[in-house]
Order: sequence, then structure tokens, then C-alpha cells
Amino acid sequence: MSEPRTLSGFGEDRLVRRLLAELTPAVVMDKSLVADATDGDDCAVVRGALRGGKYLLLKSDCVIEGRHFLASTPAAQIGWKALARPLSDIAACAGRPLHALVTIALPADTPTARARGIYRGLGRCAAEFGVLVVGGETAQMDGPAMIAVSLTGEVSPKRCCLRSGGRAGDALFVTGVLGGSLASGHHLEFRPRLTEARWLAKHFAVHAMMDLSDGLGADLPRLALASGVGFRVDRERLPRAGSVSEDQAICDGEDYELLFAVSPDEAPALLAGWTVHFPDVALTQIGQLTAPGAGAELPRGYEHFS
Amino acid sequence: MSEPRTLSGFGEDRLVRRLLAELTPAVVMDKSLVADATDGDDCAVVRGALRGGKYLLLKSDCVIEGRHFLASTPAAQIGWKALARPLSDIAACAGRPLHALVTIALPADTPTARARGIYRGLGRCAAEFGVLVVGGETAQMDGPAMIAVSLTGEVSPKRCCLRSGGRAGDALFVTGVLGGSLASGHHLEFRPRLTEARWLAKHFAVHAMMDLSDGLGADLPRLALASGVGFRVDRERLPRAGSVSEDQAICDGEDYELLFAVSPDEAPALLAGWTVHFPDVALTQIGQLTAPGAGAELPRGYEHFS
Repeated sequence: MSEPRTLSGFGEDRLVRRLLAELTPAVVMDKSLVADATDGDDCAVVRGALRGGKYLLLKSDCVIEGRHFLASTPAAQIGWKALARPLSDIAACAGRPLHALVTIALPADTPTARARGIYRGLGRCAAEFGVLVVGGETAQMDGPAMIAVSLTGEVSPKRCCLRSGGRAGDALFVTGVLGGSLASGHHLEFRPRLTEARWLAKHFAVHAMMDLSDGLGADLPRLALASGVGFRVDRERLPRAGSVSEDQAICDGEDYELLFAVSPDEAPALLAGWTVHFPDVALTQIGQLTAPGAGAELPRGYEHFS
Repeated sequence: MSEPRTLSGFGEDRLVRRLLAELTPAVVMDKSLVADATDGDDCAVVRGALRGGKYLLLKSDCVIEGRHFLASTPAAQIGWKALARPLSDIAACAGRPLHALVTIALPADTPTARARGIYRGLGRCAAEFGVLVVGGETAQMDGPAMIAVSLTGEVSPKRCCLRSGGRAGDALFVTGVLGGSLASGHHLEFRPRLTEARWLAKHFAVHAMMDLSDGLGADLPRLALASGVGFRVDRERLPRAGSVSEDQAICDGEDYELLFAVSPDEAPALLAGWTVHFPDVALTQIGQLTAPGAGAELPRGYEHFS
């Protein structure tokens, strides 16, 4: 066998792609699918199901104690993060979130107050971003606490953003600042860029977009790969959080900012409009998409199972 | 405080109901919701979203090693069960499944062949029941293996079955045979009653329906409570799997059969039609719904966190 014997030898993308590809082809391929996880997109995008011709967005995600939060993390922040993470994926598609299902698996000796705090943080995030929590499950787990959230969302076809539409020459932008998220606690209280993404898709031709969860160094190559292009990043222009280094801004992960590509012709109007609408959120052109293979190397960001 | 200090003092229903009810009321209450988990229904039921006036069904569920399967369980059976369980909830609403999102959290030293086997079993179940697997996530977990599945489904409003429509005097039926599921391995290879449920809802006025996952002794009181009625069960009529006792048939859990209530006037035609369409699946009238409080006691079935 030419493949790793255990999962630790796989990167996450490669593992999911390979395993899903092995499912009966008829199961994963369907003309109703605009995008699925085998393409590496942030959400599954389904056409033909929703009223009014909109695309249905589907996303599930889970946070696990010891990995996405600690035993010492305040409960409300755990709940907030559990919902905000998949909301960031809905944002990456320029979608509007609709419904959430929540599964919590906790050890039986978990204090009731902690379970309540998790739900409360989740509820605050749901109220803030207009998500309807329509169901919940509990399960007992002899292991780390785990909260899984599944989301539905919608987006009109002409505004739906994927990773695959980037073109050589496009200007590359990121929202906010990068790096140090775990150390600063940003990863527990970030605001998914739902409003910003929908504004972008409404007013500009966003060729490709994704959210930065594993670090620019891991995520930008995914966008470039999906778009069939290369990339060049001006490292000194990277918007850094506080005093983090360039490498940290590239590799730390859990930024939950938007990375997107637009025609360079749109860049000036984009920057001008952004400043008016989102004066408190940075927007930075960090580089451009290039012909395939022409891009510079970046240190790799975070990779699951590696 | 009048409530248990840790989760072990709660039954699952009570915990989920209480925690969800504490979310901002606007989050859980919405006129688009026909049913949500705070009602205890098998799926969340959303009106107004899908094309053609159908209801959208949403369900998430997870299986955890040591609880729903063992380290020694063949991988393909784990995958089958992970999808078949929430499919059984779609069946309980007489729905048709549409899409699945799959999250697997496995220790990094999991053999690749085992991960592949889990996906393969899941893919077989998806192909068998017409489910489109539209996305997947992997996460590394220092704890028991966990597979979470989220499903969408659809059902026409006039055929949608909930737990809440049962009436005093209704005949109570169960499909299949009950008890011994963990010992026999039935819980790893059962076929969710999707076809049977849709046939029932098409041809008969099913007043209330649910699937039996925690045992008749735990589940029937939930249906009765949701319907505001009591119940009476003829214990000697319970369809038992193999040589299990009456108590086992009532308490064992993981039967994944349908429990439903119809007018007694429909019972003869129902039994006659069933025999023609599903000659290999038992259908048994096990008792009836009664006026509130008039029902007999049953030993309790399985309860999470207790």
C-alpha cells in the first residue's frame, strides 16, 4: 500500500477527499450539488431544494475539549465558538444562516451550570446572527466534552462564493488581522464575518472566497488549488494582530477572517466602500493570484492529523 | 437549587428541554417551526423553506465508541449504524431523506483501513436509502471514536407525522420485533423503516408516530405525553425478538422500529395491506391510547444520563 497506515499520516483535506471519493460515486456525485466537501469548499451547496431558487448551504462542525477549548475555558465562550465556527463557513459562501442543530456530548459528572453556560453562549451567538436553534441532542461520553453544530443557510446563486473562481491577476484581500488567536483568546469570541461577506458579494464580483481557519499558510494554497492558479503574498503587508511575527500571522490559525479574490480593477472602490461600511474592521490587500506555479512559498499553517 | 448539580441527575429529555428553553425565546420559537426538539419530536420540522411547500426535516445524531459500538465492532457496521439511526428519525416523521453531512472524530493512531471501513458502511447505507452525502469533516480526538451525522429530509405537510397527534381510543402498533438488539447485533445492521413509514402515511391517517430507540418503556410514555393521553399495553401481545423476555422487549432499547397510533377503525385495513406490502416485517397491535392517566405502568426503558 502506498498510503499511510494510520490517520496520522494524512492531512485533513487528503483524508476527507479520499474517503468521500470512495463512497459509491452515485452517492457523492449529483447534479443538484454545486459544491461538496470533496471540492474542499466551506459548505456543501445544493441547488433545486429551496423556495425561490436559492441555494441551500449545509455545514457541520464540532469543537472538542483539549483541542478547540480547554477544561478551564469559560462555558459561554465554548458555546459561542461552537456556533461561530460553522457560521464563519456560511459567511465564506456569502450566505445567510437559517437553522442550527446542536449535539452536546459531555461526561455525566459535568456540572449542570457548565452545560447551561455552553448553551447560553451558543444562544447569544444564535440571537446575534439570526440563527434559529431547532433541535438538540445530548449524549454521555467517557472522554473529552464535544459540541457539534449543524447549520443550514441560503444564498442566491449569483452571490454564492466558492473557492474555485479565482483568476490569475486577481487582488487578494483579507479582513481583520491575523495571528495569535489562541494566545489572545480571539478564537473564543470572534464574530463571524457574515455581514461583511454579504456586503462584499452584493456590491462586488468576488471571484473566490474562504474563511481562514487553519492559517493563511494552509488555507491560501487551498484556494489557489481550487482555482487552478498560483499566488504571491507581500509578507510585509500582512495585517498582524498585536505584536505577532509574520510567521505567526501566516501559521497560527483560528483567525476566522475572510480571504477573497477580486479583479484588481475593483480594488480601489472596494477599499473605499469598506472603510465607510466597516470602519472598525481592517481590510488589506495582501497579494495577488498568479499563473499556476508562479506563486511564492508560504510556511504551512495548521493541518489536522499531521 | 432544586435541580441536579451534575448532568447525571437529568434524564435526556428533561435536560435538552430545559437547556433549549433557556435560549433566548426568539431563538427557539418561530412561526416557521412546526416541531422542534423541545417538543421531543424526532426531527425538527420547518415550514416555508423548501420548494413546493414541503416541510424541511432536520436531524443530527452521533454514535460514540464504548456506548453505541465497541472497539471490536466491524468498521462497516459502525458506519451503517451512524447513518441508519438518524434515518430512523426521518422515517418516524414519514419523511424522505435528502442530504447527509458526516463528521468523524478519531484518534490519530486509527488504522486507515478502519476509517475507510466506516465510510464504506456509511456509503452502503446512503446508497440503499437514497441519501446524498454532501460533506465531511475529520477531527482528531484523544478519546473515543465518534461519528456524527446530520440529515436533511422532506415530507409533504399532510403526511408529516409527529408524536403529538395521538387520541384516546387509538390503536397502537409497532413494526418488527422488540428486545435483545444489543445482544443480537440488530442495532448494527437494522434497516430504518423509511419505506414502511411513507406507505403508512400515504394510505392511513397516522395520528402519531415515533421510532423506538430507547425502548418501548421509555418511548411510549413520550408519545403519550406529547399527545396528552394515557396508554394501555397488552404485554403478552408484544412481538419479541427470539427468546427475549417481556421486560427485555420493553426495556432493551435500540429497536429502531416504528411505534404509531391510528384510529381503531383503520386497524383491519392496515393489517391486511401491511401483510401484502411488507410480508417480511411483523406488524402488531400492542395496545391502545387511553384517556390521560388511565394507562398502565411500564418498566422504564433506557435513559441517557441516568
